[in-house]
Amino acid sequence: MYKITFSFEDGSVVIHDANVGDNLLEIAREANVAIDAPCSGNASCGKCRVKLIEGELDSKRTLHITDEEYEQGWRLACVSKVTGDVKILVPDIASAYKSRMKMADLSSPEEVAIFSNAMKDVEMTGISLHNSLDVIEVEMEAPTLDDTMPDNERLMRALKKYFNTNTVRIPYHVLRKLPDVLRKHDFKVKCVVRTAPSNMFVYDVFGSEEEVLIVGLAVDIGTTTVSAVLLNMENGEILAKASAGNGQIRFGADVINRIIEQTRPGGKKKLQDAVIKETLNPMIANMCQSAGVKANQIYRMSVGANTTMNHLFAGINADPVRTEPYIPAFFKTNSLFAGELGIAINPDAHIIIAPNIGSYVGGDITAGTLVSMIWNRPEFSLFVDLGTNGELVFGNSDFMMSCACSAGPAFEGGDISCGMRATDGAIEACTIDKETMEPSYTIIGDPGTKPVGLCGSGIIDIICELFITGIINPKGKFVREGRRVRHDEYGMGSYVIAFEEEAASVKDIEITEVDIDNFIRAKGAIFSAIRTMLNSLDFDINMIDEVYVAGGIGSGINMQNAVYIGMFPDIPLEKFHYIGNSSLTGTYLMLLSTEAEKKTYELASNMTYMELSAVPTYMDEFVGACFLPHTDTSLFPSVMEKMSAIGD
Amino acid sequence: MYKITFSFEDGSVVIHDANVGDNLLEIAREANVAIDAPCSGNASCGKCRVKLIEGELDSKRTLHITDEEYEQGWRLACVSKVTGDVKILVPDIASAYKSRMKMADLSSPEEVAIFSNAMKDVEMTGISLHNSLDVIEVEMEAPTLDDTMPDNERLMRALKKYFNTNTVRIPYHVLRKLPDVLRKHDFKVKCVVRTAPSNMFVYDVFGSEEEVLIVGLAVDIGTTTVSAVLLNMENGEILAKASAGNGQIRFGADVINRIIEQTRPGGKKKLQDAVIKETLNPMIANMCQSAGVKANQIYRMSVGANTTMNHLFAGINADPVRTEPYIPAFFKTNSLFAGELGIAINPDAHIIIAPNIGSYVGGDITAGTLVSMIWNRPEFSLFVDLGTNGELVFGNSDFMMSCACSAGPAFEGGDISCGMRATDGAIEACTIDKETMEPSYTIIGDPGTKPVGLCGSGIIDIICELFITGIINPKGKFVREGRRVRHDEYGMGSYVIAFEEEAASVKDIEITEVDIDNFIRAKGAIFSAIRTMLNSLDFDINMIDEVYVAGGIGSGINMQNAVYIGMFPDIPLEKFHYIGNSSLTGTYLMLLSTEAEKKTYELASNMTYMELSAVPTYMDEFVGACFLPHTDTSLFPSVMEKMSAIGD
Repeated sequence: MYKITFSFEDGSVVIHDANVGDNLLEIAREANVAIDAPCSGNASCGKCRVKLIEGELDSKRTLHITDEEYEQGWRLACVSKVTGDVKILVPDIASAYKSRMKMADLSSPEEVAIFSNAMKDVEMTGISLHNSLDVIEVEMEAPTLDDTMPDNERLMRALKKYFNTNTVRIPYHVLRKLPDVLRKHDFKVKCVVRTAPSNMFVYDVFGSEEEVLIVGLAVDIGTTTVSAVLLNMENGEILAKASAGNGQIRFGADVINRIIEQTRPGGKKKLQDAVIKETLNPMIANMCQSAGVKANQIYRMSVGANTTMNHLFAGINADPVRTEPYIPAFFKTNSLFAGELGIAINPDAHIIIAPNIGSYVGGDITAGTLVSMIWNRPEFSLFVDLGTNGELVFGNSDFMMSCACSAGPAFEGGDISCGMRATDGAIEACTIDKETMEPSYTIIGDPGTKPVGLCGSGIIDIICELFITGIINPKGKFVREGRRVRHDEYGMGSYVIAFEEEAASVKDIEITEVDIDNFIRAKGAIFSAIRTMLNSLDFDINMIDEVYVAGGIGSGINMQNAVYIGMFPDIPLEKFHYIGNSSLTGTYLMLLSTEAEKKTYELASNMTYMELSAVPTYMDEFVGACFLPHTDTSLFPSVMEKMSAIGD
Repeated sequence: MYKITFSFEDGSVVIHDANVGDNLLEIAREANVAIDAPCSGNASCGKCRVKLIEGELDSKRTLHITDEEYEQGWRLACVSKVTGDVKILVPDIASAYKSRMKMADLSSPEEVAIFSNAMKDVEMTGISLHNSLDVIEVEMEAPTLDDTMPDNERLMRALKKYFNTNTVRIPYHVLRKLPDVLRKHDFKVKCVVRTAPSNMFVYDVFGSEEEVLIVGLAVDIGTTTVSAVLLNMENGEILAKASAGNGQIRFGADVINRIIEQTRPGGKKKLQDAVIKETLNPMIANMCQSAGVKANQIYRMSVGANTTMNHLFAGINADPVRTEPYIPAFFKTNSLFAGELGIAINPDAHIIIAPNIGSYVGGDITAGTLVSMIWNRPEFSLFVDLGTNGELVFGNSDFMMSCACSAGPAFEGGDISCGMRATDGAIEACTIDKETMEPSYTIIGDPGTKPVGLCGSGIIDIICELFITGIINPKGKFVREGRRVRHDEYGMGSYVIAFEEEAASVKDIEITEVDIDNFIRAKGAIFSAIRTMLNSLDFDINMIDEVYVAGGIGSGINMQNAVYIGMFPDIPLEKFHYIGNSSLTGTYLMLLSTEAEKKTYELASNMTYMELSAVPTYMDEFVGACFLPHTDTSLFPSVMEKMSAIGD
């Protein structure tokens, strides 16, 4: 047995045992050390870089590590085997997805407006914002030698008097505290209850003089990012908001790799722990502290997630989702409770799952569709969710059709050598001077924040600017030379956005031809999906009245640039609306409003699903879209106009 | 910090840290070392004897340890304080209650007959022996690309076809295994379900070719002893039967001491763990092994226990049960599930609690009353449960009245220096030769088993024989001399039933005047309770038609001797029936039959409770009954006759 010491930039260490020949990435997973491995250990993404500090590793050479870097001790964890005791540095960048839990600043109006606007939108359609949770104040006679009714019956009788119901259920967690609370507060209490027409469920009991807040937890579980809000269930007020990288990312960036991981012995538990214990529970603890509420006062939770994430969250085998005929264990379920899943909120809290409608269109999309409001308008609208996969919904108040395309994680910075989530340190917007080829960029975070990497909106800008300044050609290959344009020994070009000394990174922040190629395929997948779905409905692109774009690509997304690179159709800019994380907003609405929850189930069951891979023309559309902007330039007249204007 | 090493006769050790001055009994409790302390550490019972092996203790001298024993290293744990590292022996006798889990031999017809007879008895009253659990076989079409219904909906649809219901609930534990079971068994499965008029709950799912047994677990949680059976829920067949000492005994022999213990910080958890994790779960594991079933196949459980035991089992504060106005948290509850309580059976298993009817008449009595059948007969019957407390029910098909008296644990061998439960090694019957004063006794266990101590039935016999042979007088004092009669330095007499060399014990098995006194007060409590209750109803003792005696006193109970010592009224012997552990049998019936369960609730709500301490004459009755057989000998004509016959 040898000792593997993982050290981190903050000075902390994790020590784990290993045998000769053990794979370093596997050991890291066992030791719960988060090293990003979007390609799940295939040596293809180059993300799992670690640095030797003491000892040796038996590491394969790959293109991802230069000779110079190798000399400095850089290795890829996925191709390194243990030969003895070793100490390695896990740089922050290698766990960039995980390490950055972020609490939103609720004093910023934008953070809150998105929720209050969504509330107003659905309310205007006649949907009531009420839910079934309530606080009821109850006064009982204290027992005497002549009135020896036990505590639970006494409370039930009092509640039945208040609310005409046959059945009052006092669950174990409440029964257990009942004798003490009743006596401490002289049989004058407040109960948190759920009322249904024929029964009442008592979630909690407090003294009548105590302040009682009913808190809800809405969560969007993205493949890459987990986002959540705490809300006041009475009025929808946002009490806290946080996001963090999904801890599952060390088991692979995409759903397929994770499904494969969860089929290994103990895999379901590992993947479930990674998202619940490692990601969600710390977020809940932070949010509760920031909001000044107790986790036990969170009495209901809702989840918006794609079908695979829903399964991995519940620890349910997702393999049938991946293999023909692609059957999930559930579209919707009423059977999930916080206590059974190990979520650190009230154990009786019921978990509302935004309904999946197929293996590749999940609750994140149905919840997002609710928020898009396309179901309530006569205009033909397109809803695009740029998650780790891309999903589309097109339709209006009469019909809706959905489809999914495997865009990959590029929109959230995955599959991109310097990619990262849209969080502090991410370059979110960029322009490049046509003459000097020097960039100007803006960075997410406080003024003075140094760049760490590139998020989706930043990558769109860079590729667009490289393209319209003629630095790269429509195939994404570098065709101009300069200080920032480099070519490696194999001739692969790259552009340096920030040199190491300007960046908060251990290497230059650059974009390579491989990155550009990955991104072009991602945007091509989106555009060809739009075209294929519209064609199948006999719709022309110009018949799209509105486009609602959602997802973790970053609020800084420049729609014009997204059109320029051929990601979105070339229609007037004012038709595009970025609606943020609509999965989170929709999940929030489902939690707050029982009618909104029902409406989402209704939307899900009315939505048609189109399997793109079954459409013969899809592949041709995709190949054509893997250009900047497209092989068929007639589809992008305004882009051509701009190009020729710049060319002048 | 010093090291306290507890060693056991089987060679095992437990080591625990302690500080100077720490109390040894407290350390044992912390270390989960079972040392009996029926008096809960008041130095009054003398049960917590341990022997010094290495090191010293600062121990008070008490009457329970002779000078000679003190020299040998014997100490009482409850009055011993730590002075440094120490190693002590915990003799088996000190943990006699705990260590002896016993599996019943089901090939013995008596073990099983009691249950099948009870089944027949209730069935004859028209009660159906059916319950709501069933196995349903379901065949589904396997999904295809054209039929992509998710697994849970597919199963629900199939079940709804079989059983016309609105709602099918598939809980989390089933949903989690569903994808694998469906695919492994080609969508042909068996479901364990609970059906109710409007809904169905799916407990489990198996392949259709698998053998599926629905197992139930009925448990009697006595203050001293825990007994349980596994049964086939389809036909009531007993699959396994076991008993063990209640692990809570180290927190005190009676309910009062335990209630006080559970009010200390962490106390509720400790007492709950002692009965569930330490006592019940090992019994379940043993029974499952013996029956060849999986614990997860136990889908329902029932509990018969006194009110305090019910609270401590559920980890619910029992202090209000003890203090005026004596209010339990519940008489009955539907809110207990195995998973939440940490019982090692199917986590969704619902726990049926035999209803309590007051602080001192609990579910053990209501379940026992069901078995006694007194509610179905015109004759006036008396049901007596000799547990750690004594409880009585008197009545017939028209009325029933109950009361409880604090007999103490003497009937189960508590409060008796060589007392033990009615299990292997217990002397269960005894006669004494009038001339030689030599005893003959029978011992529970295989032939050749050496005596370990005295169980309740043995104590009755010994006291009776000592009395009718004139060795003790009506006050229980020794008045004859002989080899087996001894007096200590304070003049306290005792009778040696088995000398150390004949016994499997570290000392002589004897009965002392203190023991006799304790037992006389216990039997006096029972007799005076019977008299007081009958008097209050204007009934004479001779109007009792039948007496049903239940409890852990031992099946060897000699009713004649019990009458001779004035424990039971002097009525014809044929009226007495020992019905064994009626709490266990009744709980078994409630589990097997939904109608029997309902009947028990009905009996409980129709039963009047009489508070003995509120009756002014009860104390006089009690004082009169604290004699052999009674101060009023006219109440025991047949005893007087026998005495004078022997005297001749």
